[in-house]
Amino acid sequence: MPTPIEFRAIQDYYADDFAWCFGCGRLNDHGHHFRTRWDGDETLTEFQPEPDHIAIPGYVYGGLLASLIDCHSTGSAALALYRRDGHEPGDDAPVPRCVTASLKVEFLKPTPLGAPLAVRGRILEMGTRKVRVESDVWVNGDIVVRGEVVAVLAPDSMKPRPSTS
Amino acid sequence: MPTPIEFRAIQDYYADDFAWCFGCGRLNDHGHHFRTRWDGDETLTEFQPEPDHIAIPGYVYGGLLASLIDCHSTGSAALALYRRDGHEPGDDAPVPRCVTASLKVEFLKPTPLGAPLAVRGRILEMGTRKVRVESDVWVNGDIVVRGEVVAVLAPDSMKPRPSTS
Repeated sequence: MPTPIEFRAIQDYYADDFAWCFGCGRLNDHGHHFRTRWDGDETLTEFQPEPDHIAIPGYVYGGLLASLIDCHSTGSAALALYRRDGHEPGDDAPVPRCVTASLKVEFLKPTPLGAPLAVRGRILEMGTRKVRVESDVWVNGDIVVRGEVVAVLAPDSMKPRPSTS
Repeated sequence: MPTPIEFRAIQDYYADDFAWCFGCGRLNDHGHHFRTRWDGDETLTEFQPEPDHIAIPGYVYGGLLASLIDCHSTGSAALALYRRDGHEPGDDAPVPRCVTASLKVEFLKPTPLGAPLAVRGRILEMGTRKVRVESDVWVNGDIVVRGEVVAVLAPDSMKPRPSTS
């Protein structure tokens, strides 16, 4: 599919069935639309929180920061698995879709609301189906949050299923 | 303030300045309004995800589950500190407000969308300003997610500040 902004994010190329995530699915009308790309050997997701994404007035909500790290990490894992197989976003080969096995978030200091956030990730370890990603959230030149995620290829049991809600 | 539903949640009694959290603030018009209460010696937060709170169609979005554990745990920590001082929600004494220092979430299995979620928490450890909370997310009688949070009393530096956004 065409890339809506000026760079190619991995989420732009997830199969339609896997593009509904509230955090990073391009097809979820109400979601955050996080987009994750390579920046050299690091992965990068940038996001501007909304005025009501607050914990305490003036500070970004921890749940949003955890969500950002979560989707940034599954996107980073997909980028890494795809590159290992010789591919970059925009290639014809199907893009892997990862889900989160575990998520750790350390809130190092309060995250002020206002400036855009940048999450920078590093691939720590890569197995056949599993990738460990470490990330930092930057705001105003400062690291405010650190995350570590183990992402795994979505198991067959997670094929999209009709909602019962 | 009056309790809107049939039980007294700790978030109903946060001071107005601290009641804007996107996850659990009663004054945030667009937020989730998580509400946390005692259930015996455990703490309990129940929540019905919305249809678009998905990761992959049919499964609840991990960022929402992380948010739920986050606010449930800060609420549990506030309940525990308040009870240690001899208080229960509804008392006149000011309610403590905690924030998250660290959050760990293990996604044990995919969380089906549809049924309400129940988060049950246990207080593992309590210091003067710090509380460690372990929680399980239940759906359809099954534990799907486990969380552990270190919550701390909101530092003076986190007094509400005007947004710069």
